[in-house]
Amino acid sequence: MSLIKLYGMPMATCTMRVLLCLEEVGAKYELVPISMPTGEHKSPAHLARNPFGQIPALEDGDLTLFESRAIARYVLRKFKGQGPDLLKEGNLSESAMVDVWLDVEAHQYNPAISPIVYQSLILPRMYGGTPDQSIIDTNLEKLKKVLDVYEARLSKSKYLAGDFFSLADLSHFSYTKYFMATPYASVFDSYPHVKAWWEDFTSRPAFKKVAAGMGGHQ
Amino acid sequence: MSLIKLYGMPMATCTMRVLLCLEEVGAKYELVPISMPTGEHKSPAHLARNPFGQIPALEDGDLTLFESRAIARYVLRKFKGQGPDLLKEGNLSESAMVDVWLDVEAHQYNPAISPIVYQSLILPRMYGGTPDQSIIDTNLEKLKKVLDVYEARLSKSKYLAGDFFSLADLSHFSYTKYFMATPYASVFDSYPHVKAWWEDFTSRPAFKKVAAGMGGHQ
Repeated sequence: MSLIKLYGMPMATCTMRVLLCLEEVGAKYELVPISMPTGEHKSPAHLARNPFGQIPALEDGDLTLFESRAIARYVLRKFKGQGPDLLKEGNLSESAMVDVWLDVEAHQYNPAISPIVYQSLILPRMYGGTPDQSIIDTNLEKLKKVLDVYEARLSKSKYLAGDFFSLADLSHFSYTKYFMATPYASVFDSYPHVKAWWEDFTSRPAFKKVAAGMGGHQ
Repeated sequence: MSLIKLYGMPMATCTMRVLLCLEEVGAKYELVPISMPTGEHKSPAHLARNPFGQIPALEDGDLTLFESRAIARYVLRKFKGQGPDLLKEGNLSESAMVDVWLDVEAHQYNPAISPIVYQSLILPRMYGGTPDQSIIDTNLEKLKKVLDVYEARLSKSKYLAGDFFSLADLSHFSYTKYFMATPYASVFDSYPHVKAWWEDFTSRPAFKKVAAGMGGHQ
């Protein structure tokens, strides 16, 4: 059987989502670097993998997948029984709560936190640009409203979907990790349950490994 | 067993996504209207269902869910075996393709089509506002790029995830239906496979029923 190939950049947020899943289940895979600065993600070879020209993409034999949350589900289903059960698909209500909070991450949390990370880290460091403080401030207000909801939720259950770690939690890792390197990291200090939830992440071996950029070539 | 309650507005795009699923599987449910013009979605009663104050929300006994795509998955899993199999969770690669194209809808198609629908229909009709033509034009260009990808995809398979109708297709219904009522509907004429795919939708009884605003109180 051919090795799973993950096309992406080890420090790109969406690539990291998939790397974390591969590491959590202990899958064997090859990380094939796609260079965004040189435009490799828009090359014909990569457009054949993802017609939208984005990373990551995954190849498993004849199957080619893109969209990181869809790839994550695939990896967790394929290796079900290896490592923790992060989808809970055997339980109707638990799997529904995983889906709810994975969609909250995609549609509430990410839209608030990602512009802050882009403006305060990616734009100046990768592209030499100047951050737009008004975009940062607007999205910090949005993020605080989202964190109010998370604080209430995490005061009732240890993790987002319930008292079990799931793909919904995992999916928050990459943007939150970058946010913690911005000047706004102390925002989280006002949310003790969110902060405890976040600190719990860092104790997981898969997260330490991916955070260190060591996710490829097992 | 208590009846499933769906809180929402029958003509709201995200409520329609869930209504379509309930109708496809022939579930018994009650549609409980939540009035957005009067701010009912921000009331304490509704915030207890969805802390982000959005519609729809679903109650099934003790379980309360929000985020329409998560609710859709729940409904299709709960009533698996009734009606068509729109998730294909029994097949690893088919379910992965459903997930890919459901995420494409959420992250590529919706961000392009929804501002056009908002500016050209919802803003003037519901709020008496004046459309911003530059927003419409920018997003029409984005939408055409997405439709280029869809045209290529749908020239190879009858539906987005493969040669089977799935939640990925269904999920496109509500915004596309509204788009067809804008002055820009003819954009689809340049994409014959997309147009044929779209017209296929209208032949499904569940879609006719929901489109007619008849989704509640079976």
